[in-house]
Amino acid sequence: MNQQVPTETTFGSISPAEFFYRNRQLAGFGNPSQAVYSAVRELIENSLDSCEDAQRLPSIDVRMTSEDSDIIRICVSDNGTGIAEEYVPRAFATVLYGSKFHNRQRRGTFGLGVTMAVLYGQITTDSPVIVHTQYKGSQGKEYALFIDVETNQPIVKSSRPLDREYDGTSVTLQLRGDLKRAEERIIEYVRLSTVSTPHAQILLEVDGTESLKSGRWWNIHPPPVISSNPHPRAADLEMLRRLAQNNGEKRLQDFLVASFQKVGIKTSSRFLKFVSFDPARKVSSLTRDDFGRLSTALRKFDGFENPDSKSLSPIGKEAFLAGIKSTFNTVSVYYSSRGPSEWQGNPFIVEGVIAIGDAFPRSDIPILYRFANRVPLLYDSSEDVLTKTMKRLNWKRYNVDSSAPASLFIHICSTRVPYKAAGKQSIDTIPEVETEVLSLMRDLGRHFGKTTRKSEKALREGKKMREYARAFRHLAKFGADLAGTDEVPSTSRLVKQLFEVYPDE
Amino acid sequence: MNQQVPTETTFGSISPAEFFYRNRQLAGFGNPSQAVYSAVRELIENSLDSCEDAQRLPSIDVRMTSEDSDIIRICVSDNGTGIAEEYVPRAFATVLYGSKFHNRQRRGTFGLGVTMAVLYGQITTDSPVIVHTQYKGSQGKEYALFIDVETNQPIVKSSRPLDREYDGTSVTLQLRGDLKRAEERIIEYVRLSTVSTPHAQILLEVDGTESLKSGRWWNIHPPPVISSNPHPRAADLEMLRRLAQNNGEKRLQDFLVASFQKVGIKTSSRFLKFVSFDPARKVSSLTRDDFGRLSTALRKFDGFENPDSKSLSPIGKEAFLAGIKSTFNTVSVYYSSRGPSEWQGNPFIVEGVIAIGDAFPRSDIPILYRFANRVPLLYDSSEDVLTKTMKRLNWKRYNVDSSAPASLFIHICSTRVPYKAAGKQSIDTIPEVETEVLSLMRDLGRHFGKTTRKSEKALREGKKMREYARAFRHLAKFGADLAGTDEVPSTSRLVKQLFEVYPDE
Repeated sequence: MNQQVPTETTFGSISPAEFFYRNRQLAGFGNPSQAVYSAVRELIENSLDSCEDAQRLPSIDVRMTSEDSDIIRICVSDNGTGIAEEYVPRAFATVLYGSKFHNRQRRGTFGLGVTMAVLYGQITTDSPVIVHTQYKGSQGKEYALFIDVETNQPIVKSSRPLDREYDGTSVTLQLRGDLKRAEERIIEYVRLSTVSTPHAQILLEVDGTESLKSGRWWNIHPPPVISSNPHPRAADLEMLRRLAQNNGEKRLQDFLVASFQKVGIKTSSRFLKFVSFDPARKVSSLTRDDFGRLSTALRKFDGFENPDSKSLSPIGKEAFLAGIKSTFNTVSVYYSSRGPSEWQGNPFIVEGVIAIGDAFPRSDIPILYRFANRVPLLYDSSEDVLTKTMKRLNWKRYNVDSSAPASLFIHICSTRVPYKAAGKQSIDTIPEVETEVLSLMRDLGRHFGKTTRKSEKALREGKKMREYARAFRHLAKFGADLAGTDEVPSTSRLVKQLFEVYPDE
Repeated sequence: MNQQVPTETTFGSISPAEFFYRNRQLAGFGNPSQAVYSAVRELIENSLDSCEDAQRLPSIDVRMTSEDSDIIRICVSDNGTGIAEEYVPRAFATVLYGSKFHNRQRRGTFGLGVTMAVLYGQITTDSPVIVHTQYKGSQGKEYALFIDVETNQPIVKSSRPLDREYDGTSVTLQLRGDLKRAEERIIEYVRLSTVSTPHAQILLEVDGTESLKSGRWWNIHPPPVISSNPHPRAADLEMLRRLAQNNGEKRLQDFLVASFQKVGIKTSSRFLKFVSFDPARKVSSLTRDDFGRLSTALRKFDGFENPDSKSLSPIGKEAFLAGIKSTFNTVSVYYSSRGPSEWQGNPFIVEGVIAIGDAFPRSDIPILYRFANRVPLLYDSSEDVLTKTMKRLNWKRYNVDSSAPASLFIHICSTRVPYKAAGKQSIDTIPEVETEVLSLMRDLGRHFGKTTRKSEKALREGKKMREYARAFRHLAKFGADLAGTDEVPSTSRLVKQLFEVYPDE
């Protein structure tokens, strides 16, 4: 830190912890209000992931208290799997360490978020993170942990046995932040989290007062998400070589079938013919050039099926609608979905709901709610592929304007969401994703247009019918007067016949 | 890669190379056209930084050739310092390793960019990066390097002595990308680079044809940028403890004076009184709590001067205007600057130019050109603090509308630019930065308003004067006719007197 004029260029290496410590805004910890928001968000996401692993309906308690003018204590408790004790220190105090490196849909993806919250707490308040966890019914344990930033290693300040009522984890940390400015966003985040994870219940308590209790709009746990082999189109040279390392003894064809999803004997035969390789060749005999040819051919061969969707967990029509209807006042809702498709071999599904309701602000274009792997995205909307795609569409054509307030809920789920930044706030413009989102939005728009046209027509017809009914009643009265009778005949059947409305009776 | 259903939560750690390999869109390598752009950009920025270290006017050659339908070879050569051979492998093939970790303004900041380009080339074309460098007049050397992604270590495929004409570095890499779609952006990037580094000359050659030669609009090298001690307000607990590690024997007061910028005996005495610490106390006697109190007090004490600007390199009025006027057709330009100010102890300066010219598209708000540490930012503009601030201002009040096409060139330079993402495309909304940018833009706007009002007034007055002149000529003719003379007296002096215009003669 003391060097002055560097007449020589000096070089050095830094740990990932150091990198993110220096550039914390990259991970969403750039300023005091964003830091509070990001910390709460990362803890909730970890808890939801853990409950999914446990296949339990999540019950998550979030407690925030102002300890001092700008010191905030955050405690998030869940009923998830808990964490085996040997993993606790590194899971919370090593950057880029985590349970998140599999080929399946997860909320957390970078092994970064919670550790960043811990790091931020440590450098702003010098307090350790307290982790209280119970795993598989064993004795609960409580840890107090710091991060050694220079080495990216955990420092265990203390650990002790401590009973816990049930399996799960509670994480407590203190950080310097702006709770007032962050609170509204956190409330919105929690509400929207129970739209995209409607089987979860989240309680939010601020300074001892219940601020929000949201969720459990749906009682069915989604099926478990299954990690799958990579898709062959995802195989770049790096991946191919790694897969080959442990399979040197295999025949090339068997290697392909065993290593990739959706590749059977038939597909692999056709592929190997396409690239002119002997199916019986040993993997260990492949040269660097062979790998190069293989990798190019894997991308170019059009005989592979689309990636499978076992590793994805879309919200699904009923659950998504339940979440939206429980959270917003809607008049009508419509669901649609596209996929599974793939980007660079990563499977993804987009699903969405267009909703009409008085709750949504009046605007020329729909209000957009964005979700990625069931996580609501609240910041940085304008550079997001979802927002950009929405703006490309001419919503007037679908009858959306300020007289018909609509809102769009779009969810993309993937084994890898192409976030633009490590803070996970917006999705990069990947052509394959853009295409699918566009189709989905068009479909939602067309349906909206039809519905509003229908209801407009219904409105017009109703008005006309009431006018005719009045005229017919006058005519009937006139006829009855002419006939000198007091008994005016009913004309309602006549009107209904004219408008082709046939009552149920 | 072969694991299936994870009934157990499994944990693991990944290297920074692996992290960015998996999430390459975070660093600007998300799709084939962006990848070409980012690779060229990172190489140019490294070259410019290196020439600055050498205090030489940069001459940079960028050569791109299409090797195959979508394989592109990029070669960037500079006349910078060159790199000492022991550093070459890690500088190009270890993520988060670099010369960039000092407290001074640099284009590169993360130790990430060029390595990402190398990594991307390697995984898409299986070719190594070729580095040809000569350092301090010694024998030139050429390296061929790969990255071991799993360990984040370089693999030296080959190295050999190879003469080079002069000190500097040439880097050649191949990658799969979309040159057609990237070319326009690269041209714009190079043009704007020579606006913000007008003493540089950059030659861009595509498939053997000169595509652009830009720069050397200014022949004076800016003064060297000096690394300085951190500002006391930048000292969080982590930094304080590290600084203290090597200074245990020092008295607290001497420690403060030696470790921080702008802290002398007087300031440190006042500060230590403010926080009630004995100036003579040994640093080694400070407890964890003492550091906590010190760090809080360093942030709260208002007796520190603003950070110094030795570590910054603003473009400066003359050079900035030279760059703009050489690149765009301008009618009038106006320069202003603010600072040095600080955000979290990091000094920064904002400077800007508002220009009028027919080259700029007609729009209700100015066209904005963004620069950070002399690097033009072309992507992700809408979430950038500069764009957001510009949009907050009512430009009509400053006479900017589609009839008066204006453009803004805004440069922020800092020892740490708060980029939103590792791809370095947009600047985060830091309150201190926002405030200064707003003041700068207001100043530029006010000047623009005055100028256009002046020129509008001049236009109006000119028209009126021409009308009066015509009327006076008629009157004079009329008078002369009345007087029966052919000699019509000149009225131009009369008109000038009326409009208070006094000719120079």
